[in-house]
Amino acid sequence: MSSEEIVKFMRSMRSVRRFAPRPVPEDAIRGILEVGRWTGSAKNTQPWELLLVREPATLQALSKLGQFAEHLARAPMAVLLIMNSTANRFDSGRLAERLMLGGWAYGVGSCIASLFPEENEAQAKQLLRVPGDREMRTAISFGYPADVAALRASSDAGRRSVLPMGRKPLNDLVHLERYGEHII
Amino acid sequence: MSSEEIVKFMRSMRSVRRFAPRPVPEDAIRGILEVGRWTGSAKNTQPWELLLVREPATLQALSKLGQFAEHLARAPMAVLLIMNSTANRFDSGRLAERLMLGGWAYGVGSCIASLFPEENEAQAKQLLRVPGDREMRTAISFGYPADVAALRASSDAGRRSVLPMGRKPLNDLVHLERYGEHII
Repeated sequence: MSSEEIVKFMRSMRSVRRFAPRPVPEDAIRGILEVGRWTGSAKNTQPWELLLVREPATLQALSKLGQFAEHLARAPMAVLLIMNSTANRFDSGRLAERLMLGGWAYGVGSCIASLFPEENEAQAKQLLRVPGDREMRTAISFGYPADVAALRASSDAGRRSVLPMGRKPLNDLVHLERYGEHII
Repeated sequence: MSSEEIVKFMRSMRSVRRFAPRPVPEDAIRGILEVGRWTGSAKNTQPWELLLVREPATLQALSKLGQFAEHLARAPMAVLLIMNSTANRFDSGRLAERLMLGGWAYGVGSCIASLFPEENEAQAKQLLRVPGDREMRTAISFGYPADVAALRASSDAGRRSVLPMGRKPLNDLVHLERYGEHII
């Protein structure tokens, strides 16, 4: 496995919002959880638990408790990030990224939904019997992409996205030694 | 490249705090930045810029502006995450994880330092001429591991870590369908 292949693999990941109906197989689930399990965290506190949801009724209910969360209803599976406190957002971002890359290693796409505002988060926690003192802000849907178009970030059932596509060029992103000094 | 190889690659990453003196080569730097550049973010806002630091005097100064930040002084290179606001912590965690994995693809280790408390962050921003309205909480050191022992999370120059090693077992980490229902 060359460095370039690994970079290409990570570079190629896109959010997927439309999924094929077939379930995510056990080996892919195990891979996703294992990659997540080995995420680093501040002082290795691992301030998290995961909740795996495959019941369609639950996914349906969760899809109504977030912003841009509709994709949860159409996913064969979701993983919820249960954090020890609201102070762990940076670590929860690290965890989310790894879970998504873990899925992508199996060709399984994913998309983040925010359980938001707080009232929605509280309702989701109640539904899933999550203790009140935890934060559960993030749900990630997983599934095989419905089709090739589903690999485009803008793809959502029948409507065109208004979100900007692609990424900023390196020269707008990176400064060298001091802010304002660009590298390229 | 099999799914299992990719999972193994991600699973194998550990924080590295002691680095060999040789510089991080240009192709690895490009890989790190490219993996970072393609990080997903809320609504694809890409609320970040990166600052690449290799000047030893700057790394030395930064190493005094954080908690557990000493490793910056001994690294050949660091990348600072400049975020648009303090509301982007989740996205900054996603970005950090990818930058680290990007390095790891080249065998380059890394470790996160927090520029903290706020007074230290402000000082670091001033040093690097970063606009006052940005958040710059996270610096990541990069370099080849000094030796095999440097790949152990506990490894720091001559002292034993008091941090817990390893990770929680899957059964403590993952719930199924409802909180409290374990999978294995």
